Amino acid sequence: MPPPTTAETTADIPADAPAPASPTLVGRYHEVRDLTEELAAPLGPEDQTVQTMPDVSPTKWHRAHTTWFFETFVLQPHRGGYQPFHEAFGYLFNSYYETVGARHTRADRGQITRPTASEVGSYREAVDRSMAATLSSDIGEAVHELVTLGLHHEQQHQELLLMDIKHVLSCNPLRPAYLAHDPQRAADPGPLRWLDRPGGIVAVGHDGDGFAYDNEGPRHDTLLRPHRLADRLVTNGEWQEFVADGGYQRPELWLSDGWAEVQAGGWEAPLYWEQVGDAWHEFTLAGRHEVDPHRPVVHVSHYEADAFARWAGARLPTEQEWEAAVAAQPFVEPTFSAAGPHPRGAEGAVGPLRQAFGEVWQWTASAYVGFPGYTPPPGAVGEYNGKFMSGQVVLRGSSCATPPGHARATYRNFFPPRARWAFSGVRLAADA
Amino acid sequence: MPPPTTAETTADIPADAPAPASPTLVGRYHEVRDLTEELAAPLGPEDQTVQTMPDVSPTKWHRAHTTWFFETFVLQPHRGGYQPFHEAFGYLFNSYYETVGARHTRADRGQITRPTASEVGSYREAVDRSMAATLSSDIGEAVHELVTLGLHHEQQHQELLLMDIKHVLSCNPLRPAYLAHDPQRAADPGPLRWLDRPGGIVAVGHDGDGFAYDNEGPRHDTLLRPHRLADRLVTNGEWQEFVADGGYQRPELWLSDGWAEVQAGGWEAPLYWEQVGDAWHEFTLAGRHEVDPHRPVVHVSHYEADAFARWAGARLPTEQEWEAAVAAQPFVEPTFSAAGPHPRGAEGAVGPLRQAFGEVWQWTASAYVGFPGYTPPPGAVGEYNGKFMSGQVVLRGSSCATPPGHARATYRNFFPPRARWAFSGVRLAADA
Amino acid sequence: MPPPTTAETTADIPADAPAPASPTLVGRYHEVRDLTEELAAPLGPEDQTVQTMPDVSPTKWHRAHTTWFFETFVLQPHRGGYQPFHEAFGYLFNSYYETVGARHTRADRGQITRPTASEVGSYREAVDRSMAATLSSDIGEAVHELVTLGLHHEQQHQELLLMDIKHVLSCNPLRPAYLAHDPQRAADPGPLRWLDRPGGIVAVGHDGDGFAYDNEGPRHDTLLRPHRLADRLVTNGEWQEFVADGGYQRPELWLSDGWAEVQAGGWEAPLYWEQVGDAWHEFTLAGRHEVDPHRPVVHVSHYEADAFARWAGARLPTEQEWEAAVAAQPFVEPTFSAAGPHPRGAEGAVGPLRQAFGEVWQWTASAYVGFPGYTPPPGAVGEYNGKFMSGQVVLRGSSCATPPGHARATYRNFFPPRARWAFSGVRLAADA
Amino acid sequence: MPPPTTAETTADIPADAPAPASPTLVGRYHEVRDLTEELAAPLGPEDQTVQTMPDVSPTKWHRAHTTWFFETFVLQPHRGGYQPFHEAFGYLFNSYYETVGARHTRADRGQITRPTASEVGSYREAVDRSMAATLSSDIGEAVHELVTLGLHHEQQHQELLLMDIKHVLSCNPLRPAYLAHDPQRAADPGPLRWLDRPGGIVAVGHDGDGFAYDNEGPRHDTLLRPHRLADRLVTNGEWQEFVADGGYQRPELWLSDGWAEVQAGGWEAPLYWEQVGDAWHEFTLAGRHEVDPHRPVVHVSHYEADAFARWAGARLPTEQEWEAAVAAQPFVEPTFSAAGPHPRGAEGAVGPLRQAFGEVWQWTASAYVGFPGYTPPPGAVGEYNGKFMSGQVVLRGSSCATPPGHARATYRNFFPPRARWAFSGVRLAADA
Repeated sequence: MPPPTTAETTADIPADAPAPASPTLVGRYHEVRDLTEELAAPLGPEDQTVQTMPDVSPTKWHRAHTTWFFETFVLQPHRGGYQPFHEAFGYLFNSYYETVGARHTRADRGQITRPTASEVGSYREAVDRSMAATLSSDIGEAVHELVTLGLHHEQQHQELLLMDIKHVLSCNPLRPAYLAHDPQRAADPGPLRWLDRPGGIVAVGHDGDGFAYDNEGPRHDTLLRPHRLADRLVTNGEWQEFVADGGYQRPELWLSDGWAEVQAGGWEAPLYWEQVGDAWHEFTLAGRHEVDPHRPVVHVSHYEADAFARWAGARLPTEQEWEAAVAAQPFVEPTFSAAGPHPRGAEGAVGPLRQAFGEVWQWTASAYVGFPGYTPPPGAVGEYNGKFMSGQVVLRGSSCATPPGHARATYRNFFPPRARWAFSGVRLAADA
Repeated sequence: MPPPTTAETTADIPADAPAPASPTLVGRYHEVRDLTEELAAPLGPEDQTVQTMPDVSPTKWHRAHTTWFFETFVLQPHRGGYQPFHEAFGYLFNSYYETVGARHTRADRGQITRPTASEVGSYREAVDRSMAATLSSDIGEAVHELVTLGLHHEQQHQELLLMDIKHVLSCNPLRPAYLAHDPQRAADPGPLRWLDRPGGIVAVGHDGDGFAYDNEGPRHDTLLRPHRLADRLVTNGEWQEFVADGGYQRPELWLSDGWAEVQAGGWEAPLYWEQVGDAWHEFTLAGRHEVDPHRPVVHVSHYEADAFARWAGARLPTEQEWEAAVAAQPFVEPTFSAAGPHPRGAEGAVGPLRQAFGEVWQWTASAYVGFPGYTPPPGAVGEYNGKFMSGQVVLRGSSCATPPGHARATYRNFFPPRARWAFSGVRLAADA
Repeated sequence: MPPPTTAETTADIPADAPAPASPTLVGRYHEVRDLTEELAAPLGPEDQTVQTMPDVSPTKWHRAHTTWFFETFVLQPHRGGYQPFHEAFGYLFNSYYETVGARHTRADRGQITRPTASEVGSYREAVDRSMAATLSSDIGEAVHELVTLGLHHEQQHQELLLMDIKHVLSCNPLRPAYLAHDPQRAADPGPLRWLDRPGGIVAVGHDGDGFAYDNEGPRHDTLLRPHRLADRLVTNGEWQEFVADGGYQRPELWLSDGWAEVQAGGWEAPLYWEQVGDAWHEFTLAGRHEVDPHRPVVHVSHYEADAFARWAGARLPTEQEWEAAVAAQPFVEPTFSAAGPHPRGAEGAVGPLRQAFGEVWQWTASAYVGFPGYTPPPGAVGEYNGKFMSGQVVLRGSSCATPPGHARATYRNFFPPRARWAFSGVRLAADA
Repeated sequence: MPPPTTAETTADIPADAPAPASPTLVGRYHEVRDLTEELAAPLGPEDQTVQTMPDVSPTKWHRAHTTWFFETFVLQPHRGGYQPFHEAFGYLFNSYYETVGARHTRADRGQITRPTASEVGSYREAVDRSMAATLSSDIGEAVHELVTLGLHHEQQHQELLLMDIKHVLSCNPLRPAYLAHDPQRAADPGPLRWLDRPGGIVAVGHDGDGFAYDNEGPRHDTLLRPHRLADRLVTNGEWQEFVADGGYQRPELWLSDGWAEVQAGGWEAPLYWEQVGDAWHEFTLAGRHEVDPHRPVVHVSHYEADAFARWAGARLPTEQEWEAAVAAQPFVEPTFSAAGPHPRGAEGAVGPLRQAFGEVWQWTASAYVGFPGYTPPPGAVGEYNGKFMSGQVVLRGSSCATPPGHARATYRNFFPPRARWAFSGVRLAADA
């Protein structure tokens, strides 16, 4: 009998992908763009087309949208005589920039069968050629900044691509893998330890040295109270205790909106967990496997993180507490593997605040609002972050699906509190 | 610049496809199965995967479901030692047979990226091999009947495949063609003429000679009143007059439910009509073209057909009136072209009741209920037609998208009165 | 402790209300109008205001809308110098007459607290005074017909008022009664007997003698096949057998749309049945009582009626079969009690086709379409029946909630097949 | 002609209601309870029953729920031998206390016609008698605190009652008044002046002296940056300029979620504004009147407040900025009139930060989360505030509909950012 579906087996897993390291912008441009294509490579045309919920975008849409960004903000205004690759792509691949013009409805992205995945490849190649020519000429500071922004934008979409395709594949009763392989059991991370953290005035926010999004600044003083932070992430084993203790059946543990989601969505465990016989399994990009108690829990909403913390007699950290602790220790670039990213566990993690990066985004107690003194930059690019400052919650750190070179202590990720399809997990905090 | 999307141009249009004509069942099996693949051939993997509304099924689903029918109802019960191609396909490709077991949610068919279009091809080939072996052995009458039913079932899905892909492609702002070519203007069909038809007792329903679905019988007497039938279909030109006369703005012309749909859906013209400048264009499988006033109007709902008839001072025929008239004249097999089916016009049509077949399905005034004495056959195959006898309206004739050999005077097609994505049009009737 | 809610007890049940019998039109006008107020009398202002689903209208809306009918179609055009009682009432109390002007959204009728129930009473009195003056003058035939139509229209709304308030009260966890009293057990109706009915051509439809709605004609010949009709209605006891036999869990018994409703609505028994301990109870206008096995089942949808018939090895009658049988036996005016109408049982019912009227409306197998030759009358009154001829099913007979004098053999009631809040039940039929 | 609807005219407007001032708890109990009944007095039974959106509760529900609070948390646990007034009222009138037991669905509160408004009055009287007896006995500190909490809880519902009935009456095309009277034009408040406010560490939150909700503490230090606050509220005249300048058509002014609401809701102006001819009118509790340019704008969402501030080149204040400024000036009890509360205007307002209380709640830039160190109290009463700390935005101050004695500088009101039916308006802030 033939193998049931494509790409479920893979002979050799790609080695870890390094962070973009080229000394030139054009070099980094190609490094980033190539990783996008590498991430899409295990996915066939069907995989790249489907949208399983409004939050999800098709793989080929991500590949095209990131290309449209360079075409719209770099090539069209700054490359003389540039002709758009296709007149309709501006309409199809604009994501949310109101000031750039009309755009295709987000929830209908999965209705577009053409351009095909292959044609999107041609689009990428054409734009890459023009970009390479542009970048080898004398570009000014403003264009340099736009290209840099475009590369970070594309790295964001690399993580979205992985989040989204995981959701797409999970909706298939066959539970096909992005890249199948058998994970080894992770080592026991040992008991959680509390790090005592002092109060006082500390400066947080990006200091302008190196790239950062607008929402990471301005750097400003903030007043902390003495507190404690967990030295590692909450594990699947701990989450199983929460489930077994009726965590999903006890309204007193939940925020009111969270409890409504639990009931409306029939939540009984993190997204992608399924009970197979007596055991919890979880769907991963490497296929469905038994839940490993030593790895960090992942794909929980803010509501679940908050309820877990209350159950554990703790709370979530504020983003300022998180940043102050992480900024105080050396930054170590996390490893990234394109072969089915999944949290690894605490082994080898350095601290004192271990697993800050490269495992799961960590929900904070902080609503996503502008830092004091923040104002969005003018123009279309200014729509980038500021207009989402309502109804969302900040996550800090980075995840196993965050591409290499994209993590930093001031990074402010954000999602609505009910969202579960990001690689999001939990670090506990407590008052002193 | 590269061509924007695949398959928009085609050098030579396939010649008309003939009706299955092989003297053997195995021969007809291959003829029907091959036509399905021929119809899918212009469609890439992306095209074959998407579902743009719950009524629509992906192309590869149609290809797999028709295969599942033979596997489930013929091979599994009647071919010793047969092993299903894939254990999950029964779940994925059952359409609505409750008695056969659980099945995947209809509205989520577009979430399934695997099996791929190519793997569905392998599935078809494997089942075809087993079927060929079975059909070359000594099968009994019951299996012969099941295979015959399966072939007619597949022919139905050939038309659905065309209806569905037309909807899919229409949702793309690029309006890509299934197979692009430039239609010629149709000849003027001349003024509508009324055929006087007598009253009295006539027998309708299938007489058991040749294949028919269960819902076409039992043959029975019915009492007609004298009436008149239009000798041809309503044209686009006549529909444009209706539109221009405020047909879609005058509630007194509409059934109450129909008026609610007009307002909820913002209907201003048939599905697939768009105003381009001052002119109405329509999206066809051959791309978007200016509306041809001489061709029959197509893609109108029962509500629109009924409102048009009221506006025209006429009514829709009952299915008995339609059948009695058509049964009284010779049957001529309509031509079928796989190259972007679209209504042709009245030129060369024979009568007296011209355009009975091969242009558009004709909405009747008859609700879809069982004929007197009808009882569904037992077993899963008995779920075929009877359980839909509620809330739907009968259409008679056949359309340009009906595969060759599938039309007959007793055929009872049915859709909900709001449905517009079938190749449905209007023939008028009136009391004597 | 004070009694929990108003009107739950009533000392003496009103005697049966007679049919309007006055020899003059003005006399019959007052008889009908008075019964409306008598039916509303047990209901407080709160009861009269609420709308618990879009199909339901508040009691005071019924009282006002029937008044608006006389004001709009009789007083304004035919009474010189008449000034509308309130300029906004035309907007508020038009039900669906598109040609009369804009109207308040049906689903929002329950948002209107003013005019109050008492003010609606003043509206009724004022219109009644003007109507009495008009009717005591020399009115022509046309006005006479309009008033007669208005009275039948008001009788229809009397039944709707009872259906609607039953739904309203049923949504209250207190299950308060409209008028509380303890029903006696009904007598055993004995086993169902089949009446053999001949085939052939018979005339059906109203013959123009006495009042009828437009949709009851024209009278016309129809061709029947020999068949059998049950001599009595299906009882609660029989329905309990159906429930106990898994009737609501077996998809093969159901129409496809019906099965979808069963699952979406969580149907396990007729509307208003509740399991209390081991026993089925049902909510009635007289409060909640244990289901009486000898009374006719009531508040079942067409889908349930159809599934029950299939389970019983029978089918539903066509409306022509029903009418032919009932027209062949003497008409006996059913009794009507305003004190919490509820089906009584077969005791004392005359036949041969017993319980034709005054118990429950009887679902037929017939879709609601126009009779041959039917055309709606012109003008606003012509919107009365014709525009609902889509997606609905015919019920025949009358119910315990049908006001006296409103039943006849040609009456064509209609509801969507999923509707359950009418006093609808089942009579079985079978092929000969 | 009779007056169209009840209560549209009122001879004499009640004098301003004073704050509860009795030296005894039982005295204050009666003062608060009496005001609830005074506020309900202009409303008939129909008015008190209806729910026009899920956020709205019927008047009689408010009257019953506040009574249930005392019955459940005071009488049942603390009054020996107390029998509940009605066994089902616990189910019907629990609002959201999960730990107290099952409860009636919030969105269905408008389906309950019984108990009637009058029966709710009897319920209130019976509980008041028991409460009076209890309060005249020797109650301990815990009960004293519960009663005090219950009175503040009832004051909150007094404002909700006014908000809710305003929405109910506004849905009636007659636009009936709660209490009709003709407002006088307000005086011109003069140009907005900016108050310079210093940065530094300040303490905010309730200090425990007098009553406060749990969410107002703990008092804690916070770090402010130098900033400016508007000395008065934004006026209708200023809002009309925003509207005229295309404020509701320019996406660049709006948060992303806000822009989605503008489009989905068809927002063109504040809730309750309607264009009558060329002029903006607004629906008030005193009926519909032309918008007064000198009064504060009211019934705007957080999204609108934020967009207005951006349009004005300013921002919204943080709740800490607001509290620090207001705590620095003397508190003046605002006047309250039960006769159709509506913002008055700046005349006579004292400052420097004028109109802090008694006009409109002032949206802040602060998401509603717990203050540092906040933990909800245990038990059902602990469900009071903490579980809503997600997805809502803080408003500060008080409004014209806030009952007397209920305003204080630390009060933290909160609503979702899209809510508009509260008496909410705007005070601007800016960076120094």
